Amino acid sequence: MDGTVAQQEKPLYIKLNAKDNVAIIVNAGGLPQGTLFPCGLELREPIPEGHKVALTDLNQDEPIIRYGEIIGYAVRPIKKGSWIDESSVMLPTPPNLDELPLANNVPELQPPLTGYTLEGYRNEDGSVGTKNILGISTSVQCVAGVLDYAVQRIKAEILPKYPNVDDVIALNHNYGCGVAINAPEAKIPVRTLQNLATHPNFGGEVLIVGLGCEKLLPEKLVPAGAAATVISLQDQPGFSSMVETIMAAAEERLARLNRRQRVTCPVTDLVVGLQCGGSDAFSGVTANPAVGYAADLLVRAGATVLFSEVTEVRDAIHLLTPRAVNEQVGQALIQEMKWYDHYLQLGEADRSANPAPGNKKGGLANVVEKSLGSIAKSGTSPIASVLPPGEKAKQKGLIYAATPASDFICGTLQLASGIHVQIFTTGRGTPYGLAMVPVVKVATRNSLANQWPDLIDVNAGKIATGEATIEAIGWEIFRLILDVASGRKQTWAEHWGLHNALCLFNPAPVT
Amino acid sequence: MDGTVAQQEKPLYIKLNAKDNVAIIVNAGGLPQGTLFPCGLELREPIPEGHKVALTDLNQDEPIIRYGEIIGYAVRPIKKGSWIDESSVMLPTPPNLDELPLANNVPELQPPLTGYTLEGYRNEDGSVGTKNILGISTSVQCVAGVLDYAVQRIKAEILPKYPNVDDVIALNHNYGCGVAINAPEAKIPVRTLQNLATHPNFGGEVLIVGLGCEKLLPEKLVPAGAAATVISLQDQPGFSSMVETIMAAAEERLARLNRRQRVTCPVTDLVVGLQCGGSDAFSGVTANPAVGYAADLLVRAGATVLFSEVTEVRDAIHLLTPRAVNEQVGQALIQEMKWYDHYLQLGEADRSANPAPGNKKGGLANVVEKSLGSIAKSGTSPIASVLPPGEKAKQKGLIYAATPASDFICGTLQLASGIHVQIFTTGRGTPYGLAMVPVVKVATRNSLANQWPDLIDVNAGKIATGEATIEAIGWEIFRLILDVASGRKQTWAEHWGLHNALCLFNPAPVT
Ligand SMILES: [Ca+2]
Ligand SMILES: [Ca+2]
Ligand SMILES: [Ca+2]
Ligand SMILES: [Ca+2]
Ligand SMILES: [Ca+2]
Repeated sequence: MDGTVAQQEKPLYIKLNAKDNVAIIVNAGGLPQGTLFPCGLELREPIPEGHKVALTDLNQDEPIIRYGEIIGYAVRPIKKGSWIDESSVMLPTPPNLDELPLANNVPELQPPLTGYTLEGYRNEDGSVGTKNILGISTSVQCVAGVLDYAVQRIKAEILPKYPNVDDVIALNHNYGCGVAINAPEAKIPVRTLQNLATHPNFGGEVLIVGLGCEKLLPEKLVPAGAAATVISLQDQPGFSSMVETIMAAAEERLARLNRRQRVTCPVTDLVVGLQCGGSDAFSGVTANPAVGYAADLLVRAGATVLFSEVTEVRDAIHLLTPRAVNEQVGQALIQEMKWYDHYLQLGEADRSANPAPGNKKGGLANVVEKSLGSIAKSGTSPIASVLPPGEKAKQKGLIYAATPASDFICGTLQLASGIHVQIFTTGRGTPYGLAMVPVVKVATRNSLANQWPDLIDVNAGKIATGEATIEAIGWEIFRLILDVASGRKQTWAEHWGLHNALCLFNPAPVT
Repeated sequence: MDGTVAQQEKPLYIKLNAKDNVAIIVNAGGLPQGTLFPCGLELREPIPEGHKVALTDLNQDEPIIRYGEIIGYAVRPIKKGSWIDESSVMLPTPPNLDELPLANNVPELQPPLTGYTLEGYRNEDGSVGTKNILGISTSVQCVAGVLDYAVQRIKAEILPKYPNVDDVIALNHNYGCGVAINAPEAKIPVRTLQNLATHPNFGGEVLIVGLGCEKLLPEKLVPAGAAATVISLQDQPGFSSMVETIMAAAEERLARLNRRQRVTCPVTDLVVGLQCGGSDAFSGVTANPAVGYAADLLVRAGATVLFSEVTEVRDAIHLLTPRAVNEQVGQALIQEMKWYDHYLQLGEADRSANPAPGNKKGGLANVVEKSLGSIAKSGTSPIASVLPPGEKAKQKGLIYAATPASDFICGTLQLASGIHVQIFTTGRGTPYGLAMVPVVKVATRNSLANQWPDLIDVNAGKIATGEATIEAIGWEIFRLILDVASGRKQTWAEHWGLHNALCLFNPAPVT
């Protein structure tokens, strides 16, 4: 009989903060009406797994407190032992962005963590790759069909000759033409493509396939002073020639990439991205705090760590601005929130757009509760800087990289920012993967880890059942990141070759 | 010695309308300074192929006239025989949408064209398919990686057993979650996905792969009363099981699809989409008028014909509203223009966002000139109705289907509207293709047709050199559409399996 089953026999709830007047039910399958807890609490109705129970009687309009923070107000009187579902919780107003404390509670730096390294591919510009990939960039979506055809042939006919190269990737996307290229916000997709083209896992080889008449000139993707090749399809005499030209350019680069060797590198060379997707009420209790613990370890070891997802940070922003290293960084954080408020307003969208139905089914009443759980990924380090969407990270430490919460857009923007590994926590479960870097998937619940043994890399669900501590899972994630970055271990997504397409963030119109 | 070379020896320009005070140079490579035409016109400077020459002296601010319409005003005095490049042309103000004539010049219906049929797959709901494809829809982008993996295995291991089925297609897209699903404009991507799922080429088989926690509920893609299967990945015990479940569902449907047989169908069952991409100054002289001629033949034969591309119609809208069959259809046209004006304004984009640099290099000075050439595709039939983006066509005759001009978004929306074949005219050249239906590519210039013999299906360039008439190429396109729709001939894109990804139009924000 394993621990999970034993725990299911004993009713269990988790209260996170002494101030909380609600707790969440841990037992798989939820608990029936009449369940009696050792503390004397009795359930007045059945409560699903991950959902909230009232720990005290609540009057109408009384604050509902979780994580020590107000996640909303009681819509009606709620008796102790009742289920607090989403319909019982009134959404509070979001923090006023003009009245936030800035850098007034900057965490002290924790002691450096030494003795850890990774095995990476050192590039000429000093950056380090954690995979050895030929990336073929595109300046416009028009070329995607031809490039896909060519890449299929390269993988079948050429790649096997260069066994030290991991993969050949077409960086296809929906941009480059038929878009408002001069609109103010077009700078976001353009710089995203520029920074993807020079990702450190591509070893400094910049190969671009363009059409010849697109609005986004291929030269715009080439970094100043870099050696790059642009293949323009309109210069080619027909389809067969296009394919042969791409294949020949690829082979030349594969031969060079094949000579790359892993060398021992300090952890200061590593850039890790954090994300959650398909969240549930356990995300903020198990997986995200464990990732936060790993983030603190990474920061102590000198790495760069990015956390993101504006719509999941917005309602907890008052907890982040005090952690900004200085007022300027605090202002930059606020600026990104304001930009997004305006963007959503233009589209007549409101905060209720997040969470998704699955989040709610998992026990998250609203975006405030989701946000409090989401920012747990950031750990406890000071926020060293803020990156606008798709900008490359240049600093060490914990960075807020402003991105939408959408898993694919966040993934694409974090890749542009230069991440080597992404840590992805999931409660409901998503088979997420990226082609350019490994994705470590962390489950929030034992039941998900048990259900998807060939997709979940780390089970943080053991934290809820008391089988493991946040600290222990945090260390497991930290060590796994170094193993995966060094090529010593494979994530499940890498094992299956499972990956989602790039998805650019284009807030400007299409034409 | 072939006709092209002969023509190059003789200087040639094309004047389209008696009122025009400019013409375009036809000769490949352009013509040198001093070139003397039989009419006495002498070039004052070298003029590139496809670019405009002044046929008279023009004062500053004098209207520049092409297609019998004002395409702009002279920025400075221009001498007869000079090159009129984009910098010499001031953009006129767009037609005022509140002062347009409506249905005041409805073309008379041309005599019915009888004696033509196609061989199609008759579906249970009465619609006709022109290919026999298993389409697997997705309610959210999260499932794309797993579905791609499964489809690769289906194609390798199962499809060969069912030789009467043409293809298996994953309808992947960037939508479903991480989006403002309740924003007013979210209805556009949602109905697009609904209508893609039931495309007639899928034979009535609706198979949907969903995740289980997405905002876009998979059930929303299922038409009322239709038999559909939803595979929810979160219900599956792991990756291998997901893949096996999808493969089993696919095989069951492949067995049924394999029994479909082509039968003779009237042309009234056919829906054809028209689009241009990578346009040049010849688009409006050769390929688009020839397509317009074919469109008239199709309408006479009873088919449904869609033309689209709002930003390329906006500046010629005063030529379309008079052709609306009634005032209501005229108002609907204006409504779509107003919606787009507002959409572009929100993103601070203006009309200069179109044309692309390649259009300009090809001789198109501005969006007015491009529009006049673009609407030539619509031929001369009355406009029978107007479709908002992604709605299914229900009427026969010529329909304006409002879409962005972006080739991929227009293609995806026309697929949702139910097209069986797309006719795609191109001057600069693009290797465009769609997986769900054949795309017939029509070149505007001999030089492109000669350069890309393994991509271009029809050469309309012969019209410019006098080797063929608009009428003859129009008939060639009409007959090719019926052959391709009947599976008797393959387009080059079909031959190579060349296709671009679906690209949804989502004017609402992401979250
Ligand atoms: Ca998230
Ligand atoms: Ca996310
Ligand atoms: Ca991966
Ligand atoms: Ca066009
Ligand atoms: Ca187009």
